[in-house]
Amino acid sequence: MEFNLHSENNTAGKPIRCKAAVARKAGEPLVIEEIEVAPPKAWEVRIKILCTSLCHSDVTIWKMAAGPIAFFPRIFGHEAAGVVESVGENVVEVKEGDFVLPTFQSNCGECRDCKSQKGNACSKFPVPFYGGMPRDGTSRFTDMNGQTIHHFFSVSSFSEYTVVDICHVVKMNLEIPTDKACLLSCGVTTGVGAACKFAQVEEGSTVAIFGLGAVGLAVAEGARICKASRIIGVDLNPDKFEIGKNFGITEFINPASCGEKSVSQVIEEMTDGGADYCFECIGLASIMADAFNSSRQGGGKTVVLGVEMHGSPLSISPYQILRGRTVMGCMFGGLKPKSELSSYVQKYLDHELNLDAFITHEVNFKDINQAFDLLHQGKSLRCIIWMDKIENGK
Amino acid sequence: MEFNLHSENNTAGKPIRCKAAVARKAGEPLVIEEIEVAPPKAWEVRIKILCTSLCHSDVTIWKMAAGPIAFFPRIFGHEAAGVVESVGENVVEVKEGDFVLPTFQSNCGECRDCKSQKGNACSKFPVPFYGGMPRDGTSRFTDMNGQTIHHFFSVSSFSEYTVVDICHVVKMNLEIPTDKACLLSCGVTTGVGAACKFAQVEEGSTVAIFGLGAVGLAVAEGARICKASRIIGVDLNPDKFEIGKNFGITEFINPASCGEKSVSQVIEEMTDGGADYCFECIGLASIMADAFNSSRQGGGKTVVLGVEMHGSPLSISPYQILRGRTVMGCMFGGLKPKSELSSYVQKYLDHELNLDAFITHEVNFKDINQAFDLLHQGKSLRCIIWMDKIENGK
Ligand SMILES: NC(=O)c1ccc[n+]([C@@H]2O[C@H](COP(=O)([O-])OP(=O)(O)OC[C@H]3O[C@@H](n4cnc5c(N)ncnc54)[C@H](O)[C@@H]3O)[C@@H](O)[C@H]2O)c1
Ligand SMILES: NC(=O)c1ccc[n+]([C@@H]2O[C@H](COP(=O)([O-])OP(=O)(O)OC[C@H]3O[C@@H](n4cnc5c(N)ncnc54)[C@H](O)[C@@H]3O)[C@@H](O)[C@H]2O)c1
Ligand SMILES: [Zn+2]
Ligand SMILES: [Zn+2]
Ligand SMILES: [Zn+2]
Ligand SMILES: [Zn+2]
Repeated sequence: MEFNLHSENNTAGKPIRCKAAVARKAGEPLVIEEIEVAPPKAWEVRIKILCTSLCHSDVTIWKMAAGPIAFFPRIFGHEAAGVVESVGENVVEVKEGDFVLPTFQSNCGECRDCKSQKGNACSKFPVPFYGGMPRDGTSRFTDMNGQTIHHFFSVSSFSEYTVVDICHVVKMNLEIPTDKACLLSCGVTTGVGAACKFAQVEEGSTVAIFGLGAVGLAVAEGARICKASRIIGVDLNPDKFEIGKNFGITEFINPASCGEKSVSQVIEEMTDGGADYCFECIGLASIMADAFNSSRQGGGKTVVLGVEMHGSPLSISPYQILRGRTVMGCMFGGLKPKSELSSYVQKYLDHELNLDAFITHEVNFKDINQAFDLLHQGKSLRCIIWMDKIENGK
Repeated sequence: MEFNLHSENNTAGKPIRCKAAVARKAGEPLVIEEIEVAPPKAWEVRIKILCTSLCHSDVTIWKMAAGPIAFFPRIFGHEAAGVVESVGENVVEVKEGDFVLPTFQSNCGECRDCKSQKGNACSKFPVPFYGGMPRDGTSRFTDMNGQTIHHFFSVSSFSEYTVVDICHVVKMNLEIPTDKACLLSCGVTTGVGAACKFAQVEEGSTVAIFGLGAVGLAVAEGARICKASRIIGVDLNPDKFEIGKNFGITEFINPASCGEKSVSQVIEEMTDGGADYCFECIGLASIMADAFNSSRQGGGKTVVLGVEMHGSPLSISPYQILRGRTVMGCMFGGLKPKSELSSYVQKYLDHELNLDAFITHEVNFKDINQAFDLLHQGKSLRCIIWMDKIENGK
């Protein structure tokens, strides 16, 4: 892969006009528009997006018409790979032409949490549910009427160019293909990391996964790598069982076919008391509770990965907690992006981690709304959205 | 200490008439009555109780007039020390005259959970919320009208004699005084174990404890032993701060004096982001949620120890879980009674574990209702109820 931005770059320090897919209203198709992307300020990096993909977190927040995290117009997208176009003051970690992943998970490297071994929260820039840049809260995007367009998750990759804080940028190994790298910037890392690093699934253990999208199947892939003995997939879409087998799913439960029984009763019977690890990869508080109730007493762990769609609280029985059950959750698989992502790249290059099978579709940027349709219809795991094809496609 | 039951024992194999404090109706004072205690069946042990103490779990369930775990008449009590009077068939682990603790936590030693290293749930006899003996569900107690009296937590120590399954009996080191041993059969082990074994509080970490009864203060004692740097106590009873200092409490919050702020806001400010470990030792779902909200993102752990008083569910925000917070809970401090309790006895004998200060009051068995009053009024931590004094007191 070659990136010859250097030779052609006369854009540094100036605003760039480019195409972006703007969400004007909650839940309405994105509109490809000409926008202006301001130059990066201090500690910021302007990235030319090569490809991006749609994660359910985009969909969840795109659908929210109101509330503290709803901002419109907005540029969604947070799973992407790109090349540094230019950098702001103080940025030394990456330079023009570097192959990078933007990550919604910050990793400042300096705060108490970044220095601790205990997980990946960054207290400098907690996961960004607001609509601006992390340091000053302002936007780098304006539309052709001079109106501000909001950022999303500190990434906003549904744009040919975006500006990202250096704390949200990871320099990538050039050996990994762009589209595979893109997957690592959110969904796959979230699932694999949750199983292998965060929950530390043990050899021989039983795992139940609620929701077999890219995140759930990445959990399966992680559990397979950790040598779980049984990996039970739960999904309303029966097609996911066949697909799931490629990622290590050994048994399948369709909640619609459980008859009188609840899914947790079925899992309790299948596993003689409940699964050792239950992962929620849908984003519904009721399913988080189902997952909890499917975990075994005396050590059963429930890992919440889904971003709750309706802001509903998780409600569980304190008596069931007392019986030795744990509920935990993480973003980005509990990985610190800057120091821990490279091992996953290596696992891919060593053929230990399956990334290819997560890419079920590819579209041109101009057809980005198709990626939304495919995810809604349960047809895609990840649909790669290629930015440069917008030119070709015209 | 000497137990010369041998010489006088001609009761084996026969019913014993003795005094018990019977709870006839939910929430009403116990009545000292003559009852008949059947001989132990196979795998059972009849124990002469030496002393017992009142734990809040007795109070919580004694107050429940209805529901699946309310049984009356009933003999409460589960924190006790005693001597084996006789054993049923198949019991070889203890014999007549042995000094023993009954423990509500079972430890069969044979089930998958007892064999696992992961906690202390026993899947043979999960924590007994029912009203009979664990193996056959029947009772060994009858009143003078021939009416069955229910058991409590597989112990029922508010009786001169009780029958307990061998899975709920731990042989004790004779070096520890009876009343100190009694504390280890529930409350103190629960708190110390929760801090040291279950949550594994680390040196230098910050701990917040909600509820400074014996359980909460035992958590403090455990956190002190683990070298926590700050141990913040939260209680509505301001007297608990002075008392708490003896157990390592370094700071105190009275929720009634927080003004506009919530307790979790106060703790977040005090600790720059939340405590590393939060323990709920009251038994209110709302306080469990407060504890959770007081824990820091990226590794904060909330440990539920309280037995919810009203059967209310715990309700927490999935978004706050995603930020790397964990909720976990255990019974009996996560310790396996038969193999792990002895280390706490040793810690006491080595002057590493403070037990004496938990005993704030002592009463004769006939005055057992005073123990309820003292706990209600927040005056006692543990009140030792001496069984033999009932004779003297008469
Ligand atoms: N924690 C993190 O860092 C993180 C990162 C990425 C994504 N997420 C979240 O993970 C979740 C999954 O993301 P994804 O991209 O894999 O989504 P997806 O849409 O590809 O997959 C969701 C799956 O759940 C199934 N499903 C939906 N409702 C169901 C129900 N009631 N019962 C059973 N199955 C049901 C769907 O059929 C689908 O297969 C989302 O909530 C997303 O926001 C979290
Ligand atoms: N998990 C277990 O194995 C286990 C074992 C023993 C006890 N328990 C439970 O632990 C809890 C504590 O037991 P204990 O014997 O120490 O009880 P306790 O009555 O001695 O102590 C409770 C303390 O909480 C305080 N308190 C009550 N309401 C409060 C509020 N709203 N805000 C702040 N403080 C409040 C009281 O002032 C008191 O100091 C109970 O729920 C009991 O059932 C659990
Ligand atoms: Zn995502
Ligand atoms: Zn940081
Ligand atoms: Zn108790
Ligand atoms: Zn067992």
